[in-house]
Amino acid sequence: MSEDQLIKNYFLPPESHAMRDVTLGIGDDCAILDIPKNYQLVTSVDTLLEDVHFPKNFNPKDLAARAVAVCVSDLAAMGAQARWMTLALSIPENNSHWLADFSQSLHSACAYYEISLVGGDTVKGKLSISLTVMGIVETGTALRRDTAQAGDLLYVSGSLGGSAFALSKVLQKQEVAPEILSAYIQPKARLKLGQNLIGIANACMDISDGIIIDAERLANASALSVDIQMEKLPLHKALSTMPIEQAVNFATQGDDYELLFSVSVSKQDVLAELAVTLNLSLTCVGSLSASTENSYTLNNQLYTTKSKGYSHF
Amino acid sequence: MSEDQLIKNYFLPPESHAMRDVTLGIGDDCAILDIPKNYQLVTSVDTLLEDVHFPKNFNPKDLAARAVAVCVSDLAAMGAQARWMTLALSIPENNSHWLADFSQSLHSACAYYEISLVGGDTVKGKLSISLTVMGIVETGTALRRDTAQAGDLLYVSGSLGGSAFALSKVLQKQEVAPEILSAYIQPKARLKLGQNLIGIANACMDISDGIIIDAERLANASALSVDIQMEKLPLHKALSTMPIEQAVNFATQGDDYELLFSVSVSKQDVLAELAVTLNLSLTCVGSLSASTENSYTLNNQLYTTKSKGYSHF
Repeated sequence: MSEDQLIKNYFLPPESHAMRDVTLGIGDDCAILDIPKNYQLVTSVDTLLEDVHFPKNFNPKDLAARAVAVCVSDLAAMGAQARWMTLALSIPENNSHWLADFSQSLHSACAYYEISLVGGDTVKGKLSISLTVMGIVETGTALRRDTAQAGDLLYVSGSLGGSAFALSKVLQKQEVAPEILSAYIQPKARLKLGQNLIGIANACMDISDGIIIDAERLANASALSVDIQMEKLPLHKALSTMPIEQAVNFATQGDDYELLFSVSVSKQDVLAELAVTLNLSLTCVGSLSASTENSYTLNNQLYTTKSKGYSHF
Repeated sequence: MSEDQLIKNYFLPPESHAMRDVTLGIGDDCAILDIPKNYQLVTSVDTLLEDVHFPKNFNPKDLAARAVAVCVSDLAAMGAQARWMTLALSIPENNSHWLADFSQSLHSACAYYEISLVGGDTVKGKLSISLTVMGIVETGTALRRDTAQAGDLLYVSGSLGGSAFALSKVLQKQEVAPEILSAYIQPKARLKLGQNLIGIANACMDISDGIIIDAERLANASALSVDIQMEKLPLHKALSTMPIEQAVNFATQGDDYELLFSVSVSKQDVLAELAVTLNLSLTCVGSLSASTENSYTLNNQLYTTKSKGYSHF
């Protein structure tokens, strides 16, 4: 099959898909896209590689949904609206069943986040998916990680550790209840939360690599230090019956795609209302200060861990 | 080495690099970028995979320069100015010499095309480079491939076949003169030509996959047919002494990154002047018509070829 045919058969968005601000989509050397007046472009790239980011024989439908969510999560962290996406796909063979499942799920995920696939390149090789996502945000309002203030409270959305726990079961070839497995295979990017945090949060990021390593990144970028009380971490329900140390270990391993953000103390009530509006828990887990040392405690005891989260090399 | 350290050591653009329209570069969940008023965004993605797009042990300096040129060529085809780039890099090991050479050359190529690296993801795996390039073009002026007119003349820039010829020598482990090898390892994207073709060309694309397959894509997109006289193809000097059939075979294999564009007959003089200004040959190789059959002739004989160019699957 020619690459043109492959694009035509699988990767042209379905006609029902509303393309926002797309003058020209897939099919030319480049897509032509329109940035609304007074908006900035935000962009990020993520790669998911077989045997590294997902196990062999991972369901192509889950893979596509997960890849889109993982990448869109970076747009969420900026408070952006999702808009466009390019796909660099490496696949070992031209398997029409796999491609049909993968592309169908990709289009569904794009529709869910209102993001349009506008370009791609497909090569023959070990299974790998790189997505570059593009979004828009009103000029000057993007949430950043280098703008936290000393005294800010540190919040995290949703619950932590479900993904790492589910993956550990998958890797051990143990049964996992579908509602727990979904934390790993069907993470949801917090786009709406990010957008609503504009004007509320002083700084924001996603915690794909784990809350400790990512909280330190936020603190470092803002020239501050972080103080986290680990017993406050919102644990996934799958971890509720295990010893707290073990639960916290799962909760700090990453892959949760929740947002970590800092707000001034005065914003607590607004956040409580937002949590109700979005039907999403928003939990204060610590604070930021001008101290020179990061501090992690578990029930008032110093908390130490060998692994701070996911490291790529 | 952590990914943060890897980015810091190798992939932050040198301070001398002028970042155009970048509010926030590498280091947050997303880059924040500014589209000037009355401009549109154009974007494209390309992957270069070891053993598919380049041989094993390919010099990392050449690889980076080639990868950037190949991708920026898509911006050139739209008549755009290059602006930003994200890099998805898969490397088998953390080799500091390789990374230093690769990243240094990447930054040089970015400086050459005035494009800024604003995001990346690095994973451990078989060597592969995916670049998503972004550029800007005045609203409504982008060169497309679906806007050719019946009766247009078909032009190609530069010379053809040098890259395929050099690669054939490399694969046969034969000596190649540096000035010929450079056609393969150091292609140059025709950014300036593309920008100058706005207002002159009716349609434009790059011919990365070979002039026949790509001319048919342009004709198809414009609902026209193509008529090419193969003896008019501007052959690379390395092909000058070989039989014309053999030379034409190299010249149609792709990887040349020249621009193929269509102009109305009245634009011939303007193009001749532009060729002088840019010091770049612009050769008329055929025409487009409302006929239903594509036609390729070599010295008035019907030209047929088994391979129309590069096919990815």
